[in-house]
Amino acid sequence: MIDFSIPEDLVAKRDRVRQWVIDEIIPYETDPRLTQHGPTDGLRQELVEKARAAGLLTIQAPVEYGGWGLSHLEQAVLYEAAGWSTLGPVAMNCAAPDEGNMFLLNKITDAAQAERYLRPVIEGHQRSVFAMTEPDGAGSDPGQLRTTATFDGTHFRIDGLKWLITGANGARTWIIMADLQENPHLPSGPTLFLADGDAPGIVIERVMNSMDRNYVEGHCVVRFDGLSLPREALLGEAGAAFRYAQLRLAPARLTHAMRWLGAAERAQSIAIDHARTRTAFGKPIAEHQGVSFKIADNEIALHHCRLSVWYVAWLLDQGEKARHESSVAKAFVSEELFRVLDRCVQVLGGIGVTEETPVSMLFRDVRGFRLYDGPTEVHQYAIARKVLGGGR
Amino acid sequence: MIDFSIPEDLVAKRDRVRQWVIDEIIPYETDPRLTQHGPTDGLRQELVEKARAAGLLTIQAPVEYGGWGLSHLEQAVLYEAAGWSTLGPVAMNCAAPDEGNMFLLNKITDAAQAERYLRPVIEGHQRSVFAMTEPDGAGSDPGQLRTTATFDGTHFRIDGLKWLITGANGARTWIIMADLQENPHLPSGPTLFLADGDAPGIVIERVMNSMDRNYVEGHCVVRFDGLSLPREALLGEAGAAFRYAQLRLAPARLTHAMRWLGAAERAQSIAIDHARTRTAFGKPIAEHQGVSFKIADNEIALHHCRLSVWYVAWLLDQGEKARHESSVAKAFVSEELFRVLDRCVQVLGGIGVTEETPVSMLFRDVRGFRLYDGPTEVHQYAIARKVLGGGR
Amino acid sequence: MIDFSIPEDLVAKRDRVRQWVIDEIIPYETDPRLTQHGPTDGLRQELVEKARAAGLLTIQAPVEYGGWGLSHLEQAVLYEAAGWSTLGPVAMNCAAPDEGNMFLLNKITDAAQAERYLRPVIEGHQRSVFAMTEPDGAGSDPGQLRTTATFDGTHFRIDGLKWLITGANGARTWIIMADLQENPHLPSGPTLFLADGDAPGIVIERVMNSMDRNYVEGHCVVRFDGLSLPREALLGEAGAAFRYAQLRLAPARLTHAMRWLGAAERAQSIAIDHARTRTAFGKPIAEHQGVSFKIADNEIALHHCRLSVWYVAWLLDQGEKARHESSVAKAFVSEELFRVLDRCVQVLGGIGVTEETPVSMLFRDVRGFRLYDGPTEVHQYAIARKVLGGGR
Amino acid sequence: MIDFSIPEDLVAKRDRVRQWVIDEIIPYETDPRLTQHGPTDGLRQELVEKARAAGLLTIQAPVEYGGWGLSHLEQAVLYEAAGWSTLGPVAMNCAAPDEGNMFLLNKITDAAQAERYLRPVIEGHQRSVFAMTEPDGAGSDPGQLRTTATFDGTHFRIDGLKWLITGANGARTWIIMADLQENPHLPSGPTLFLADGDAPGIVIERVMNSMDRNYVEGHCVVRFDGLSLPREALLGEAGAAFRYAQLRLAPARLTHAMRWLGAAERAQSIAIDHARTRTAFGKPIAEHQGVSFKIADNEIALHHCRLSVWYVAWLLDQGEKARHESSVAKAFVSEELFRVLDRCVQVLGGIGVTEETPVSMLFRDVRGFRLYDGPTEVHQYAIARKVLGGGR
Repeated sequence: MIDFSIPEDLVAKRDRVRQWVIDEIIPYETDPRLTQHGPTDGLRQELVEKARAAGLLTIQAPVEYGGWGLSHLEQAVLYEAAGWSTLGPVAMNCAAPDEGNMFLLNKITDAAQAERYLRPVIEGHQRSVFAMTEPDGAGSDPGQLRTTATFDGTHFRIDGLKWLITGANGARTWIIMADLQENPHLPSGPTLFLADGDAPGIVIERVMNSMDRNYVEGHCVVRFDGLSLPREALLGEAGAAFRYAQLRLAPARLTHAMRWLGAAERAQSIAIDHARTRTAFGKPIAEHQGVSFKIADNEIALHHCRLSVWYVAWLLDQGEKARHESSVAKAFVSEELFRVLDRCVQVLGGIGVTEETPVSMLFRDVRGFRLYDGPTEVHQYAIARKVLGGGR
Repeated sequence: MIDFSIPEDLVAKRDRVRQWVIDEIIPYETDPRLTQHGPTDGLRQELVEKARAAGLLTIQAPVEYGGWGLSHLEQAVLYEAAGWSTLGPVAMNCAAPDEGNMFLLNKITDAAQAERYLRPVIEGHQRSVFAMTEPDGAGSDPGQLRTTATFDGTHFRIDGLKWLITGANGARTWIIMADLQENPHLPSGPTLFLADGDAPGIVIERVMNSMDRNYVEGHCVVRFDGLSLPREALLGEAGAAFRYAQLRLAPARLTHAMRWLGAAERAQSIAIDHARTRTAFGKPIAEHQGVSFKIADNEIALHHCRLSVWYVAWLLDQGEKARHESSVAKAFVSEELFRVLDRCVQVLGGIGVTEETPVSMLFRDVRGFRLYDGPTEVHQYAIARKVLGGGR
Repeated sequence: MIDFSIPEDLVAKRDRVRQWVIDEIIPYETDPRLTQHGPTDGLRQELVEKARAAGLLTIQAPVEYGGWGLSHLEQAVLYEAAGWSTLGPVAMNCAAPDEGNMFLLNKITDAAQAERYLRPVIEGHQRSVFAMTEPDGAGSDPGQLRTTATFDGTHFRIDGLKWLITGANGARTWIIMADLQENPHLPSGPTLFLADGDAPGIVIERVMNSMDRNYVEGHCVVRFDGLSLPREALLGEAGAAFRYAQLRLAPARLTHAMRWLGAAERAQSIAIDHARTRTAFGKPIAEHQGVSFKIADNEIALHHCRLSVWYVAWLLDQGEKARHESSVAKAFVSEELFRVLDRCVQVLGGIGVTEETPVSMLFRDVRGFRLYDGPTEVHQYAIARKVLGGGR
Repeated sequence: MIDFSIPEDLVAKRDRVRQWVIDEIIPYETDPRLTQHGPTDGLRQELVEKARAAGLLTIQAPVEYGGWGLSHLEQAVLYEAAGWSTLGPVAMNCAAPDEGNMFLLNKITDAAQAERYLRPVIEGHQRSVFAMTEPDGAGSDPGQLRTTATFDGTHFRIDGLKWLITGANGARTWIIMADLQENPHLPSGPTLFLADGDAPGIVIERVMNSMDRNYVEGHCVVRFDGLSLPREALLGEAGAAFRYAQLRLAPARLTHAMRWLGAAERAQSIAIDHARTRTAFGKPIAEHQGVSFKIADNEIALHHCRLSVWYVAWLLDQGEKARHESSVAKAFVSEELFRVLDRCVQVLGGIGVTEETPVSMLFRDVRGFRLYDGPTEVHQYAIARKVLGGGR
């Protein structure tokens, strides 16, 4: 039966995570290694070691990898707590894109691949990359994939240009999507490959300047220039890349929502403190409804975002793919959380657009969330198609 | 642990209720006795007898009264189904204001009062009234109550003017809020009284024209002109009216949300049908994103309204008063459902403003929901006060 | 050069019109002949005679018909004043659909047609109808016109079903759009015809119940059942109906905006009065920002709606067709004014959904404005096509 | 009479300004001297010299200073054109804060002050600062001014902390607001002073990191540590600082609106280009209404922002103070332009959050516009007070 209770031990874990983030991680938010291109690899490594020491590294990993084997609902509760600082998930190794990559690799690697490409990521020694997006738009629409793979029976050769490739700079485990050309050995079509980041033929052209600041080493333009991979580099089945991308997508977009929910709550708490202490016209601004109603609207939004996340997490725990439901949640949560951040900026006044508080950074970060993992409009399209029937 | 499953037997009950509403009740939506002032008493009685025959009358009543003794969560599931037509809850005797009145009376009447005033309402033979609101505003703000009660030790005398008194015309069980004046026998202050609708001194001045059309016999202006009541008319404790009003309010506003949710889903289903079949510029309008995105936005909104309702119902079932949480839910659900209805009207185009479908009626009805049970602004105020602390 | 001044004599006329509406017309707002289907013909005739006596009847008519020969900008200023009551334009004979019909007829009738069909409308003795919309949607999309006209060389025969035909009940001057079938005498395609309302073959099937209440005799379902018209009934050129409809549309939708602007200002003035005098929690509700900010938002919206209307009126006075610009203004004004009305309802609280003030009626009326003369989405589509270029 | 025409010579000037910005200034947008703290002084000086060479430097200055003596309406037309790049107004020396400072200094300096502090700013050789805002909030609310000035009859001594002081780093002409303490020589109260940026006692503590990037040298925290100024440093009358600040404010906030309008049009043009050329699901995204309706909404918003600006500019040209009207325009334009930028980001998709186009920078810049020159809420408050009367 419908139930909203959280078991006591999970509450205890949640509180422990949040307190640890407050005590140990927030101080790093003013570290200069949190740059306009996100945390540096060096900062990331320092944070990871703190989490390792605290027993909080990669807690979502399967038990056989030393993790806690968290259900999706448990992740929902704990990632929200971790998200109180955007550096929390970085430290705990449950940030994008690694979190989603580990999820996917755990599903479809063979034993040798797992040992080589997955284990070091779970253990926090390497970072990973999901190289899909291209300048012409192979994100939402598979039909536009331009990067090609050719196969001669022993080696794949990959050529093409990717961009908005998050964390590419310095990552070792690469998952690459390319369009496998007709060949006598394997099915053709969009296919995933594994590669090592230092392979010749992977060229990081530049780091893109972007509005968000929470992804380790930012987003890159990457060129594959005759990248040669052995047959064992094939990840899963040939021609199945979009199926795998979908498999990764529903949980990945949900964990984004979990983490951003925590970040937005942090922003709300900063706005509340400000409203209580800052005065204008003879009283705390909290007593002006122009301010306090924004705080109330945030409270309303945050609550429903949490319910939204929980619902899909529960569905996933039931073994559902939840494609439709995760679209519904993603569209709702990303739009609502952006409004929360926008109101927090407004409550803070002039300070809101400075980096005196993390709110302006979160505002910028969450703006991106309305676009990645499918822009709101792609979700509206998919939801409408589901609801209105196959005709469109 | 967090869980969103609905037991199979409850699913069966829900489906039975919805189907019954579709088969038996929707045909009455074009009955001329559904007037601009809502269903007439006559129509209501006919509907009630249908529900009685189907075993669906007052199912929320305690078992000792012949009901199913529903929990709040069970109500959430079943009222949503009943709300598929606004006449559904009227038939099943779970519409406002009777539903909330029965809830309150069951909590605070003594045995004799229950037998006289509550049982006939539960059995569908009488309707009830909650006479609180006044022209100067004794709705949201208790301090503005102008109706007085004087007490001479044996009788109360009640004088004053009320308006927006829903269903007053023809109701027998009256709950009246009046300001008990200083007297040597009882505590003074806002107090509830029970009266019979045909008592001399209860004068129905007129039925008010209003935008909504779903309340039996509409909303009235009522004058108490020397209404004399015996000591046994005292409902609960003297001076405790606002406490009781609050006791009634959280569940009452939640059941509103449940029923309107069902009504909004009905509107959405009509909009979907229209979008699939109506063509413009050579294709079904469902294939124009200007239309289909509205359908998607509705889907998103309806889903989160349901989660919102379930959460508070669960809290109430845990024995919580849920004042804050029911404010959060009421503000969210009423605003979201209005937007749903507004989009349905827009999808329907010119038809949307006519009564060719029930959508325009629902649009008008739901507009009221943003005002009664506390306007959104009163909830924003209360939520902000809770979140920001006692200082304001 | 850009200038926002209104000449003194126009200010004087504007003030005279508004004062006359306040003094002479507003008292009729509670007349029972203002029904759920709009003002009756009888009420309309009484109002028209009042305007005639005051010298304010059909002031927009060309000077040769006894009008003031108003420019579009002068109409903008004066219709806004007339709109202070929805009965103002009815009385002054500048309400829809007559106002737009007179505009069109004045452009394209020949002398005999004008004398028979236009003059009595200008003089207030007859009402007129523009019979275009059909159940399958021949409103926004010409391709869906189902009503047919056949021509045998001497007579047209018209058959088909129309609905949402405003004011049909009792009107004498009919403009009918029908699809002229292939024939050896005239070009085929959508064509306009003139007819007399009492002609056999014009069957008013029923008046549709609708949300709005300001159109004389409401909206009808009309059947043309072998309506026979002589050759002189041809209005303008055969096959040119959509060109004429467009010719009528830009000014007609603009005059709607003018009148609704005045009505929305009236609602705002009622909300202001309420906010000043109604108290809650110990002070006038005007002192709660939850209320006062809505008043401010209305002030902002109303001001920009006025500028919007003036701009297009000026363009039309320059001889521009202003199709694009009138779409921009219509989409903006209709959406903004609806929000104004919605906020007025909310400021009024419970009273806002009753007919204790005209606000709830205006809320319902303005809801329709977002749909007729092209729903907002059709304007968004047209605007986008203009801005983005011919490719779509 | 109301008129929206722009004289031909002004059209020619406008087109010349825009083309010059496109040809000469936009190439600097990728110059590394456009930093996260805005353009450096060095970049600014290079741009200024380009404008000087083109005869476009400080064109708004009075004719006696070599300017064109522009009316407010002429400014509206030309600043919009200049704003096509945020560097346009920097180059032309009509950017904030210098533009408003020049306006104010021209009104209230004496001849010697003008020669020393105003002329070098007009000539582009110096920058200026308006040092008002303080950490405790002396922006919107004068009562919170903490910086003090004491006067011994010959010298003022100024102590206090300011922040969000735009362009302080490197500026020479300082306008400082301080609370003149009781003294026997001059009236006390908030007072303006002139100072030279290299005076001992002006300490730039740090540059604040902020979301916007268009103000030369960003925003600073500044400490006045015993700053000693001679009697001639008094700017205008003692105790009159808030009157002067208001005098500066209405035109200054309007010129912000003019420039941001141009910038938003630029963003819209980039979004349009993207929508035409980027494809998804087999056609240009411009053919998806989820995209094209955003372009249409932008077109609607931009048009009404322009009308809004023109109206207040016209009022100012009539000699009106236009405090209320400039509040109405500022609240409207800042909120609308932010929505325009937000939609442009969304249309661009993933690129929208990167700096591949200037749109993400403009999005961040315009976010600030909703806060400076009075947050929207302060304008709503002021507008409501004006409309609702003195009672609040």
